[in-house]
Amino acid sequence: MKKVLVINGPNLNLLGEREPDVYGKLTLESINGEMEELAKELKLDLEFFQSNHEGEMVDRIGSAKKSFAAIVINPAAYTHTSVAIRDAVSACGIPVIEVHLSNIYGREEFRQKSLIAPVAKGQISGFGKESYLLALRAVSKII
Amino acid sequence: MKKVLVINGPNLNLLGEREPDVYGKLTLESINGEMEELAKELKLDLEFFQSNHEGEMVDRIGSAKKSFAAIVINPAAYTHTSVAIRDAVSACGIPVIEVHLSNIYGREEFRQKSLIAPVAKGQISGFGKESYLLALRAVSKII
Amino acid sequence: MKKVLVINGPNLNLLGEREPDVYGKLTLESINGEMEELAKELKLDLEFFQSNHEGEMVDRIGSAKKSFAAIVINPAAYTHTSVAIRDAVSACGIPVIEVHLSNIYGREEFRQKSLIAPVAKGQISGFGKESYLLALRAVSKII
Amino acid sequence: MKKVLVINGPNLNLLGEREPDVYGKLTLESINGEMEELAKELKLDLEFFQSNHEGEMVDRIGSAKKSFAAIVINPAAYTHTSVAIRDAVSACGIPVIEVHLSNIYGREEFRQKSLIAPVAKGQISGFGKESYLLALRAVSKII
Amino acid sequence: MKKVLVINGPNLNLLGEREPDVYGKLTLESINGEMEELAKELKLDLEFFQSNHEGEMVDRIGSAKKSFAAIVINPAAYTHTSVAIRDAVSACGIPVIEVHLSNIYGREEFRQKSLIAPVAKGQISGFGKESYLLALRAVSKII
Amino acid sequence: MKKVLVINGPNLNLLGEREPDVYGKLTLESINGEMEELAKELKLDLEFFQSNHEGEMVDRIGSAKKSFAAIVINPAAYTHTSVAIRDAVSACGIPVIEVHLSNIYGREEFRQKSLIAPVAKGQISGFGKESYLLALRAVSKII
Amino acid sequence: MKKVLVINGPNLNLLGEREPDVYGKLTLESINGEMEELAKELKLDLEFFQSNHEGEMVDRIGSAKKSFAAIVINPAAYTHTSVAIRDAVSACGIPVIEVHLSNIYGREEFRQKSLIAPVAKGQISGFGKESYLLALRAVSKII
Amino acid sequence: MKKVLVINGPNLNLLGEREPDVYGKLTLESINGEMEELAKELKLDLEFFQSNHEGEMVDRIGSAKKSFAAIVINPAAYTHTSVAIRDAVSACGIPVIEVHLSNIYGREEFRQKSLIAPVAKGQISGFGKESYLLALRAVSKII
Amino acid sequence: MKKVLVINGPNLNLLGEREPDVYGKLTLESINGEMEELAKELKLDLEFFQSNHEGEMVDRIGSAKKSFAAIVINPAAYTHTSVAIRDAVSACGIPVIEVHLSNIYGREEFRQKSLIAPVAKGQISGFGKESYLLALRAVSKII
Amino acid sequence: MKKVLVINGPNLNLLGEREPDVYGKLTLESINGEMEELAKELKLDLEFFQSNHEGEMVDRIGSAKKSFAAIVINPAAYTHTSVAIRDAVSACGIPVIEVHLSNIYGREEFRQKSLIAPVAKGQISGFGKESYLLALRAVSKII
Amino acid sequence: MKKVLVINGPNLNLLGEREPDVYGKLTLESINGEMEELAKELKLDLEFFQSNHEGEMVDRIGSAKKSFAAIVINPAAYTHTSVAIRDAVSACGIPVIEVHLSNIYGREEFRQKSLIAPVAKGQISGFGKESYLLALRAVSKII
Amino acid sequence: MKKVLVINGPNLNLLGEREPDVYGKLTLESINGEMEELAKELKLDLEFFQSNHEGEMVDRIGSAKKSFAAIVINPAAYTHTSVAIRDAVSACGIPVIEVHLSNIYGREEFRQKSLIAPVAKGQISGFGKESYLLALRAVSKII
Repeated sequence: MKKVLVINGPNLNLLGEREPDVYGKLTLESINGEMEELAKELKLDLEFFQSNHEGEMVDRIGSAKKSFAAIVINPAAYTHTSVAIRDAVSACGIPVIEVHLSNIYGREEFRQKSLIAPVAKGQISGFGKESYLLALRAVSKII
Repeated sequence: MKKVLVINGPNLNLLGEREPDVYGKLTLESINGEMEELAKELKLDLEFFQSNHEGEMVDRIGSAKKSFAAIVINPAAYTHTSVAIRDAVSACGIPVIEVHLSNIYGREEFRQKSLIAPVAKGQISGFGKESYLLALRAVSKII
Repeated sequence: MKKVLVINGPNLNLLGEREPDVYGKLTLESINGEMEELAKELKLDLEFFQSNHEGEMVDRIGSAKKSFAAIVINPAAYTHTSVAIRDAVSACGIPVIEVHLSNIYGREEFRQKSLIAPVAKGQISGFGKESYLLALRAVSKII
Repeated sequence: MKKVLVINGPNLNLLGEREPDVYGKLTLESINGEMEELAKELKLDLEFFQSNHEGEMVDRIGSAKKSFAAIVINPAAYTHTSVAIRDAVSACGIPVIEVHLSNIYGREEFRQKSLIAPVAKGQISGFGKESYLLALRAVSKII
Repeated sequence: MKKVLVINGPNLNLLGEREPDVYGKLTLESINGEMEELAKELKLDLEFFQSNHEGEMVDRIGSAKKSFAAIVINPAAYTHTSVAIRDAVSACGIPVIEVHLSNIYGREEFRQKSLIAPVAKGQISGFGKESYLLALRAVSKII
Repeated sequence: MKKVLVINGPNLNLLGEREPDVYGKLTLESINGEMEELAKELKLDLEFFQSNHEGEMVDRIGSAKKSFAAIVINPAAYTHTSVAIRDAVSACGIPVIEVHLSNIYGREEFRQKSLIAPVAKGQISGFGKESYLLALRAVSKII
Repeated sequence: MKKVLVINGPNLNLLGEREPDVYGKLTLESINGEMEELAKELKLDLEFFQSNHEGEMVDRIGSAKKSFAAIVINPAAYTHTSVAIRDAVSACGIPVIEVHLSNIYGREEFRQKSLIAPVAKGQISGFGKESYLLALRAVSKII
Repeated sequence: MKKVLVINGPNLNLLGEREPDVYGKLTLESINGEMEELAKELKLDLEFFQSNHEGEMVDRIGSAKKSFAAIVINPAAYTHTSVAIRDAVSACGIPVIEVHLSNIYGREEFRQKSLIAPVAKGQISGFGKESYLLALRAVSKII
Repeated sequence: MKKVLVINGPNLNLLGEREPDVYGKLTLESINGEMEELAKELKLDLEFFQSNHEGEMVDRIGSAKKSFAAIVINPAAYTHTSVAIRDAVSACGIPVIEVHLSNIYGREEFRQKSLIAPVAKGQISGFGKESYLLALRAVSKII
Repeated sequence: MKKVLVINGPNLNLLGEREPDVYGKLTLESINGEMEELAKELKLDLEFFQSNHEGEMVDRIGSAKKSFAAIVINPAAYTHTSVAIRDAVSACGIPVIEVHLSNIYGREEFRQKSLIAPVAKGQISGFGKESYLLALRAVSKII
Repeated sequence: MKKVLVINGPNLNLLGEREPDVYGKLTLESINGEMEELAKELKLDLEFFQSNHEGEMVDRIGSAKKSFAAIVINPAAYTHTSVAIRDAVSACGIPVIEVHLSNIYGREEFRQKSLIAPVAKGQISGFGKESYLLALRAVSKII
Repeated sequence: MKKVLVINGPNLNLLGEREPDVYGKLTLESINGEMEELAKELKLDLEFFQSNHEGEMVDRIGSAKKSFAAIVINPAAYTHTSVAIRDAVSACGIPVIEVHLSNIYGREEFRQKSLIAPVAKGQISGFGKESYLLALRAVSKII
C-alpha cells in the first residue's frame, strides 16, 4: 500500500475551538478519522503531521520523498507567507495537493494569494472536511 | 435523482485540439462521458452546456434554480473578466463549484485571479479531467 | 412624443428573486410599470430592453439614434468591465443616463469604478426604483 | 412642512464667475431660487448654507438632525479629501444626498473618487442645476 | 487561392458615423472594398465578419482553422478586456494579425494595453484604413 | 502642577450619539470627567479643547508650548488627511500622544494610516475611554 | 501701483521657532520686511495674509480678483492635501505663483507632490527667503 | 489573582545590547522586573515567555486560554510578517494587547504595517518600557 | 524623389549575431538591402543611420525635417526609456513610423511599454524584416 | 567675476521651432542674450553649453567645479530619466539650480517627476525665459 | 585564528537532489569541504550551521558575536520573507555577508527582493559554490 | 593570457572626490592598480574603460566578444535606467560580472533595482574596492 503524508499547518490543532463560524465544529481528529476510513477503501496508508512551526513543516516535506508517494497539505497561515514551504514543495519530487477548509477566495484580501499553489499539483478549497477527502481521491488517481 | 448542470465556458469546445501541452488531448466529450458514468454511481442526473458567450452562460445560470440542485462550472477565460457571471452565480441560489483543468495558479499572472471564486461554494483546480469528477463527488456530499 | 430607450443589463431579469437584501423585492416589471406612468406625465414614450448579453446591448445602443431621443441604462455588471458598451454609449450621439438601484460606492471595491460614467451625460445611484424615475425626469429636461 | 438642509462646499460661492466652461453661467443664487420653487411644490422647507470651511460643514452636518429631515450636499473639492465630512455624514442620522453639477467621472482622475458617496444615501452627478432639483425630488420620496 | 478571415469587433459597424474626429469618415464597407482590390493583387480570397458579440468572435476564430490560412482582426473594445478572444487567438493554430485604425498608444490609458497582442503574430496600429491593407500584405508574406 | 492640553478632533462632540456600535455610549464630557479625576491623582492640570476645524487645531497646537508640558490628541478624521496638524505636532516642541477610542487597525483600509503617528511620541489605540487615561499616565512618566 | 496678495499657509506663523534646521531662523515678519523693500523697487503694493485655516485661504483667494493683480502663495502643508485651494487658485482669474522655503523635492515622499502646482503659473522652491523675492520679481514681469 | 501571559518575540532577548540608539539600554529582565512590581499593585500574576521562533509563539498563544485571562505581546519582527501569529491571536479567545518599545510609525515603511493589530484588542506603541506598563494597566481594566 | 530617414537604435548593429532565437539570422545590411529595393519601386530615396547613442539619435531626428519627408525608426532599447527621443519625435514636424522586429507585446513586461508610440504616426511590430518593409509602404501612402 | 555654467539639455537647440504652443517662439540664442545682459548687471560671467547627449552633460557637470561657482541647468527630457545626471549634480560640489520653461506640473504625468530636483539647490518652473533670469538672480544671492 | 560562522537556510540540506537544473549537483557537504580548504589558506576557522527554522537562525545569529568575527549566510527562502533574520543581522554587531548560489535577479519577481541585503555588509549572488568562496575572501579582507 | 574588459560607468572618473562618505577616498586609478596586481597573479590581462556615455558603453560591450573572455562592469547610474546596456550585456556572448562599490540595497529605493543583474552572470555589491577584486577572482574561475 502506498503511503501518503497529511500535513496540517499552524493553529489547525485548535480546530473545533477556533472561530467555529468560519471553520465549523469538527476537530482535526475527526477529520483524520474520516480520512483513515476513505484511505482504506482507496488502499492508501496515511501518516498525519501537524505543526505550528514553518521549519518543522519544511523538514518534513524535505524528507518525505523516501517514504511517501504523495503529500496532502493544508498550510493554513503559511499558505500566504512561506517561501520556505513553497521551495520545499517544489523540491520534494512527489505530488503535493493543497487543501483548505474554507473558501480562501471569499475571505480577506491577504488570504486570497497562495504562495504554495503555483508549485502544487492542484488545489481544493472551500468544502470543509470534504476538501481533505477529495484530495485523497485525487491522490489515488495521480500516483 | 437530483439534477446537476455542468457548464463549460469559452474555447473548451476545442479541447483536445487547443494547446495540448497545457490541456492534454482529452476532448470535452470524453470528459462528459466519464462524468456520466460517475454520476450514475452517485445517483445524479447531469445536463451539459458549453458556450463561448458570456451572456448565454449568465442566462443559463440565472434560470438554473428551477431545475437543478447544483452547478459545476469551468468558466475558462471568463473566470478572470466576468462580473456578470459572478453576479449570476451569487444570485442563483444553488451551490456552484468552480473547476479548472490546469492549475491556474501556476500560469500567467492574470489567470491567477478568479472573479467567480469568492461567490462559489469551492474551487478545484489543476487535476485535469479529475477536477470535474472530484467536483461531482463534492456536489453529491453538499446537496 | 419623444421616445426613450430603457436598457437593463445582466441579471436584472432576476430582480426581486436575486439578493433581496441588496436590491429589494421589487421586480423589473413593477419598475417598468412605474416608469410608464411617469412617462405619460412627462409626455415620453418608453421602450424597454433587458439582456444578459454585452453584444446585444452594444447592438441596441448602436442603432438607437434613429428612433430614440435618449437612453436610460442600468448596465449592471457590465458597468465595471465593458469597454464595448462604453464605446457604444460614446458613439451613439444621443444623451445616455446611467442609473443604479444600489449605491455602488458603498459596495465592493471593484463595483466602485464605472467604465460607462465618463461618457454618460450623468449618473444617478442608490435610490432603488427612484433612480429610474429620477433619470426619466432628467431626460425630460435635457431633450 | 419638513425641513431640508442644502449645503454647498468650497468655491461654489463663485459659481457663474468660476470656470464657466465647466460649470455654466448660473449663479448659486439662481439655483437656490429654482430649488425654492420646486420645494414649495413638494411641500419642503429649505435652508441654504455655503461655506469654504471643512470644519463649518462638519459643524452644520453634526447639528442637522435636530431640525432637518434630510440633507442635500454638494461637497465640491471636499468630496475627494474630507474624511471629517464623511464621518459627519455617516454619524448624522438623517439621509444625505450627494450632488454634483458636472459629471465628476468625466474629469481628472483625482475627482473620480468620492469619500462621501459610500456613506451617502445616493449620488446624482452631471446634470447641472438639475442635479439639485432631482435631489429634492429624491428627498421627497425618501423622507 | 488562400483564404483570409477579416474580423471586425464591436461598434465598427458604425464606422463613418461614430466619432469621425477619431476614426475618419470612411465606412467599413469602403475599407472592405479596398481590401478586396488588394487581395486580388496578392492572390488572396477574403471573407468579412463583423460582430458586437465577444462570443461570436470566439466562435468564429475557434472554427477558422478549417477554412482559413490567416486572420486579420480589429478587436476594437475587446482588445482591452477579452481573455476569451485572447485564448481563441492563441488556440486557433493559424497566424493572427491585430490591426487598429487609430494609434491606440496615443489615446486613453486603458486603451494602451492589448490583451490580444501577446498572442498575435504582430500588430499594426495608427494608419487608418492603411492598417488593414498593410496587414493583408503582411499576411501574404507570412502564409 | 504641569498643564496638559487635551485636544479632540472632528465629530467627537457627538460622542454618545454617533455610531454607538463603534464608539460606545459614553459622551466626551464623561471621558473628560474621568480624565480630570486621574489628573488630580497624577498631579496634572488639564485643559480641554474640541474642534471640528483643522485650522483651529493647528492654531492651538502651535501656541501650546507656552503654557503646556504635553498634548494628548485624538485627531479623529484628521488623523488620516491632515499634513497641517502633522506639521504642527512636529513643530510644537512638546511631547504629543495620539489616542484613538476604537482600534483603527481593525477598521476601513483608509483609517489604518495615521499621518500624525510618525511625529507623535507614541500612540494608544483601541481601549475606548481607557485610551485617554493610559495616555495621561504616559504623559506623567514622560514630562 | 499694482497690488499683490502674499498668502502664507499653516504653521508659517511659527517660522523661526519651528524646525530651524529645515527652515532657518528667519521669522515671517523679517521675510515680509524684505519683500516690502523689493516691492517698492518694483512698484508693487503688497498685502500679507497668514492663516492655518484651509477655508480662510479659499475665501481669500476667491475674493482676490477684485483688488489684486497677482498672488504669491506658500500653501505649506495644504500644498499636498487641498483640492479646495487648488480649485480656488484655478478659478481666481489672476496669476498665482507658488513658493516654498525648502526644496520640497528633497524631503519626504508625500511632500514631493503639489496639488497646487498644476494650476499655478509657476513654482519656485528651495531658496529660503529668496523664493519669495524671486516670486515678486516674476510677478513684476508677468502682470 | 488573574494570570497574564507576557510574550516577547524575536531578538528581544538581546535588548540592551541591540541597537541601543533605537531601543535604549534597558534589558528585558529589567522591564520584566518593573512589570512584576506593577502587577502586584494591580493584583495580576504574570508569566513571561520570550522566543525567536514563530511556531513557539503560535503554540503558546494557542494554549493560553486555559490558564490566562489576557496576553500582552510584543511580536517584534513577526508583527510585520506573521499571519500564523495573527490567526493564533484571533483564535485564542482572550484579549491580546500589542505593544512596541519604539514608535513603529516613525521607522521604515515595512515596519509601519502590523498584521497583528487588526485582531488585537488594542495597540500601544512608542513609550519604551512604559508601553508594557501601560498595557498591564489596560489589561487590569479589561479583564 | 522624396527622402526617408531610416534610424536603427542600440545593438541593432549586432543583428544576426545577437540572440538569433529572438531576432533571426538576418543582418541589418540585408534588411537595408531589401528596403532599398522596395524604395525604388515606391519612388523613395532612403538614408540609413544606426547608433547606440541616444544623443546621436536625438541630433539626427532634430535635424531631419530639412531633408526628409518621413522617418522610419526602430528605437530598440530606447523605446522603453528615452523621453529625449520621444520629445525629438514629437518636435520633428514630419511623420515618424515606429517598427519592431519582434512582437514587443509578447516579451518581458518592461518591453511592452513604448514611450515613443504615443507621439509616432503609427507602430508596426512583430513581422521581422517585413516590419520595415510595411513601414516603407505606410510612408509612401502618408507623405 | 564669478563664472556660472548654463547647461541646456536635449531638443532645446530647436527652441522656437519646436512645439511653439508649449514653449513659445523664443530661440535659445535670444534667451542666452538676455541672460548675458542680466549677468553683467549681477557681475557674473556666463558660459553656455547645449547638448542632446546625456553623457556630455555628465562630463560637463563633473568637471565644472574647477572653473565655475554654480550651474543653471534645464535638463529637459533627462529631468525625468537620468540618474547619471542626478549623480553628477549630487557629486559636483557647487550649487545647481534647475529651471524649466514650462510648468512641468501642468503637463503629462511622467513629466511631473524630476530625478534632478532632490539633489538640486532649488527649482524654478513655469515662467518661460524668466525662469532662467530668476535662476541667475538666485545664483547671485547664493554664491 | 579568527572564527567565521557559515549559515545555510531552508532546503539547502537538500542541495544536489533539489532542482539540479537551478542549483547544480553539488551537495552542501562538498561546498563546505571546499570552504574548509580555502579557510586554511586564509587562516580562518569555520563553523557550519544549517537549519530550516527561521527561529534557530535568529538564535544563532543573535549569539554569534561572542565567538565569531563574521558571518557568511545564505538565507535561502528566508531572504525574501524574514524581518526577524534581518533584525538579527542588523543587531549582531559583526559583519554579515549574504551569498546566493543562483543569480536571484534572474529568477521569479518575488526572489529579486532581499530583506537581508540592506543590513548586510555586502552581497554575492550567482556564482554557484564560488559565491561562498568569494565571501570567505571578502571576510578575510574585512575582519 | 586571457583578456578581461573592465568597464566603469558614469561619474566613476570622479571617484575619490565624489561623495567620499559613500564611496571612500580611493581613486579609480588606485583600484585599477590593485586589479592589475591581482590580474598578474591570476594570469589575466586587463583593459580598462571608463565612460559617462551610455552609448559608448553599449559600443564597447557590443564589440567585446572578439578580444575578451569576460567583462567586469560597474554600470553606476546606468544600472537603474539602461535597457540598452542590458541588451548589450545579454547579447555579447561572454560572461559579464556586475560590481558595485557600495551596497546598493542599503541606499535609495530607486538604486535597489538593477536592470543589468538579470542578464549578468552574477553580482557583487558592497565591498568597496574589494568588489572589483572578488569579481576578478570570479572571472578566473568561470572562464
